[in-house]
Amino acid sequence: MFKEIVTVIGGDLRQAHVANRLAAEGYRVRALLFDEDTILTPGVEVVASPDAALLQAEVVILPLPLSADEVHINAPFSRKKLRMIDCFGLIPCDALVLAGRVTSQIANIAAGYGIELVDYLEREELAVLNAVPTCEGAIAIAMQERATTIFGSKVLIAGFGRIGKVMARVLVAMGAQVTVAARRHSDLAWAQILGCKAVDMADLAKVVSQVELIFNTVPFHVFTEAVLTSFKPECLYIDLASKPGGVDFGMAKDLGIKAIWALSLPGKVAPISAGEIIKDTIMNVMEERRKKT
Amino acid sequence: MFKEIVTVIGGDLRQAHVANRLAAEGYRVRALLFDEDTILTPGVEVVASPDAALLQAEVVILPLPLSADEVHINAPFSRKKLRMIDCFGLIPCDALVLAGRVTSQIANIAAGYGIELVDYLEREELAVLNAVPTCEGAIAIAMQERATTIFGSKVLIAGFGRIGKVMARVLVAMGAQVTVAARRHSDLAWAQILGCKAVDMADLAKVVSQVELIFNTVPFHVFTEAVLTSFKPECLYIDLASKPGGVDFGMAKDLGIKAIWALSLPGKVAPISAGEIIKDTIMNVMEERRKKT
Amino acid sequence: MFKEIVTVIGGDLRQAHVANRLAAEGYRVRALLFDEDTILTPGVEVVASPDAALLQAEVVILPLPLSADEVHINAPFSRKKLRMIDCFGLIPCDALVLAGRVTSQIANIAAGYGIELVDYLEREELAVLNAVPTCEGAIAIAMQERATTIFGSKVLIAGFGRIGKVMARVLVAMGAQVTVAARRHSDLAWAQILGCKAVDMADLAKVVSQVELIFNTVPFHVFTEAVLTSFKPECLYIDLASKPGGVDFGMAKDLGIKAIWALSLPGKVAPISAGEIIKDTIMNVMEERRKKT
Amino acid sequence: MFKEIVTVIGGDLRQAHVANRLAAEGYRVRALLFDEDTILTPGVEVVASPDAALLQAEVVILPLPLSADEVHINAPFSRKKLRMIDCFGLIPCDALVLAGRVTSQIANIAAGYGIELVDYLEREELAVLNAVPTCEGAIAIAMQERATTIFGSKVLIAGFGRIGKVMARVLVAMGAQVTVAARRHSDLAWAQILGCKAVDMADLAKVVSQVELIFNTVPFHVFTEAVLTSFKPECLYIDLASKPGGVDFGMAKDLGIKAIWALSLPGKVAPISAGEIIKDTIMNVMEERRKKT
Repeated sequence: MFKEIVTVIGGDLRQAHVANRLAAEGYRVRALLFDEDTILTPGVEVVASPDAALLQAEVVILPLPLSADEVHINAPFSRKKLRMIDCFGLIPCDALVLAGRVTSQIANIAAGYGIELVDYLEREELAVLNAVPTCEGAIAIAMQERATTIFGSKVLIAGFGRIGKVMARVLVAMGAQVTVAARRHSDLAWAQILGCKAVDMADLAKVVSQVELIFNTVPFHVFTEAVLTSFKPECLYIDLASKPGGVDFGMAKDLGIKAIWALSLPGKVAPISAGEIIKDTIMNVMEERRKKT
Repeated sequence: MFKEIVTVIGGDLRQAHVANRLAAEGYRVRALLFDEDTILTPGVEVVASPDAALLQAEVVILPLPLSADEVHINAPFSRKKLRMIDCFGLIPCDALVLAGRVTSQIANIAAGYGIELVDYLEREELAVLNAVPTCEGAIAIAMQERATTIFGSKVLIAGFGRIGKVMARVLVAMGAQVTVAARRHSDLAWAQILGCKAVDMADLAKVVSQVELIFNTVPFHVFTEAVLTSFKPECLYIDLASKPGGVDFGMAKDLGIKAIWALSLPGKVAPISAGEIIKDTIMNVMEERRKKT
Repeated sequence: MFKEIVTVIGGDLRQAHVANRLAAEGYRVRALLFDEDTILTPGVEVVASPDAALLQAEVVILPLPLSADEVHINAPFSRKKLRMIDCFGLIPCDALVLAGRVTSQIANIAAGYGIELVDYLEREELAVLNAVPTCEGAIAIAMQERATTIFGSKVLIAGFGRIGKVMARVLVAMGAQVTVAARRHSDLAWAQILGCKAVDMADLAKVVSQVELIFNTVPFHVFTEAVLTSFKPECLYIDLASKPGGVDFGMAKDLGIKAIWALSLPGKVAPISAGEIIKDTIMNVMEERRKKT
Repeated sequence: MFKEIVTVIGGDLRQAHVANRLAAEGYRVRALLFDEDTILTPGVEVVASPDAALLQAEVVILPLPLSADEVHINAPFSRKKLRMIDCFGLIPCDALVLAGRVTSQIANIAAGYGIELVDYLEREELAVLNAVPTCEGAIAIAMQERATTIFGSKVLIAGFGRIGKVMARVLVAMGAQVTVAARRHSDLAWAQILGCKAVDMADLAKVVSQVELIFNTVPFHVFTEAVLTSFKPECLYIDLASKPGGVDFGMAKDLGIKAIWALSLPGKVAPISAGEIIKDTIMNVMEERRKKT
């Protein structure tokens, strides 16, 4: 089978893993902005310049996040700095270009170069699979911070999207007594099916007074002052929601509550697995493009 | 707390259970079209006429299905026949009226009487919770028909909606080796998280040759002749999908395949549980109405 | 590798399955007392006489139970009757001879012929693995007899040996609320780890009043009259214990309790799986003998 | 109900938790060798001398381990040093005296004072329940040390006693692909029932070449040089077995293998839960004594 030329530019252990795995599967892989080539397997060709990297490239894989400053490509493994626009001009016009967390501003700039940036972070399957390392990372934090086992603990999960569902599954399997707070009746039905007690989000203040560990997945301040003041003293709050999170952390601190905001866990706690998920997602995108053409 | 006057007209064990449970929770419950009053607890007032049943009724619960002939109310526990329109005219104008599987024709007729029929079968939480008795009923059939345990069996689930997800969960827990065939990448991701092998629906012919038991949940003929001819001789096919099902049953029979179409399992295998689910759903509807007013 | 000559004499679907599977693995398999040879695959040589069956036989597999009358070999698939002693005299002196449920009387008779009968029913791994079809069969009965799902049901398991542990695991996974009654503190600890409520067997009368479904695995009459009179009216009692079972069934009937004694489930509900378990066990015995010599 | 006078002497957070919990349940609890009384709740009476502690004491709870030097009572929360024999003489003759990890030498000394030391570490239910914090601690280590999720990892568990069984259950639930290596056929049968692949301990060298994470529970050097040289380079070995462990750690290091010996995890990772387990065990002992008398 035909295997495309793939260029990986920048990124952390996750993108390095993507490069290694694609090379192992027979793709011709070039990597740019990886000074420490020890993390790359011999099958990956480390190149020195954007020109060498992008000549005849059919697939271009950019990091997650694509850029920290909206100008340069995010490249923690390189001392060099490379501007995005210095790449965009060199990318062959029919290449598939993928990146993670693409702002609309950058998408517009890329479009100016005739490039349609596919944001792999927006893919549903990546979001689903990322719930697994997020969940394991959250549990690891709970284990480190508490003197009690997950088994037997009374745990609240606020919100019941992807992360909430995966958390519920694992926590129940580990023997926790799990309550899920959500708004929709159908989510509460799923929570019951997974072996959890289900309560309406409106009753949050009541339910927090009975738990020792809380995982929030709701990106709104549902943990209001009234809710926080109902916490047990020993209760640990771990927030997995993106900005603004489920609580005003300053207020939580003032109330003496131990609250931890654990963001972007997959890349931190399990970069290899997170890289594998990115690789699988990218291969789905590649396959879809193949089918179209 | 204020408890409404509830009238239950017709239905099977499920509606009888709803009547009994609401009476136990303090509602004033009247039942019509239940000759065999032994299935009703003493707290339910069995009435003889639509007038007695509907006078001042605040909530009216009609059966699932509402009617078998589009004219009379479905009432397997009564020898009497009662036309829907003979009830509609007697229902107080501000009553909440619930029924299951309401056709657009009947909905129109009811609307002519100023009645908005709420179809509880359309509620998402009922559909989710009904996946549980469906799943147990399907497993019971597999147990009866096969000389092999679920444990260790190679099982395929086609489709990964509500029923597919609940089936996967239980089958994996029972020790089956489960493969899920679905179209969407995100569904395949969920299947993997639940401990299943995930394959694209396009590869159905390949995968069926390796399994002994199939649960279909896709309401299209995805099991084409090409797929059916790849079945192992001992493979059992159980279809849980609504019309037209996943296969042409005549063709399956001609090919010597054991195929069972198991429809409407909740009411058949676990009417009490199915009634409990209807009751919970109706209480959600009642609560939502209470909040609005 | 060297493959022994194996003779299978008598038995039901389970022994037929053993014959078929050993033939498929390359053993030279002969079968006696199987008139309906359709259940045997072509690889098995159906023979007509004990002489033809046992000449040079290295492994002899007898049925489970070996005999129903202590005289003839149990052979439901044959119209012929064959006395055990008519076989014993023909078995080569160094053959490995296996049978299920060997009474001490028969063992003595065999010993008179210089034969040491290995009872495969006494093997611990067979007992462990048989807990799986027993458990599935018990659940199938519960599903058939009740109008309620396993999910959400309040279930009691009395006794916490092999069957109790497997039942607990599956029932909890299916969403039942399981209580385990046992005597030993360590068993109660295991029950808790598996997600069950654990109570002392002495509190049986108290706990039965709160459950709807009971699986007994204790082969003593722990369900005394005092316990039985505490049952809920709708409670179903399924006894999985060997004689004398956990209850006086006459007394249970007099008290209006629905009690089912489900014995020897593996061979009844899943003969293929039960045969596979026997085959695996026999291969373990054969391997152990190989290592010794 | 009658509640005994209980004296807790020495110990760490676990014994402090025992004191707090017994006080909360209405026992009259005295504590000695706890300088930092903040870890004790107001219900516990902190006393200053052995005489005050032991006068009329009915139950005496000593720490785990009882002593680090075979002379003094283990008391990490106190600056004072107290010899065991200075306590033994003061214990009322009919008191129940409990301690953890009692050497035969100390048991003999105690016997000289007419005291029978009950070693709660020897209780089967404590060993069973302690498998839970051991398992969670082991998983926390694996999460910290690896860049990969437990989900999807190929894991080997060597040995299948209490800890092996609990590890298997949790790892399978978390989505790992688990292989169990054990000697006994019945243990391998249990491993299969729990959803694991089962291999004979004799095939350890073969199986380690296919896994990324190993938890050993066998207290012998089953991981010989021949086995170690078959490890994958990235494989992490975590040893949960007591002395001498499953490997020569010097040899493992020389071979470049990452090996961690994780001993006494319950007290380290989850002292509150470990204390709760001790408390439950002690209450079982107390109840048994009550029944006898």
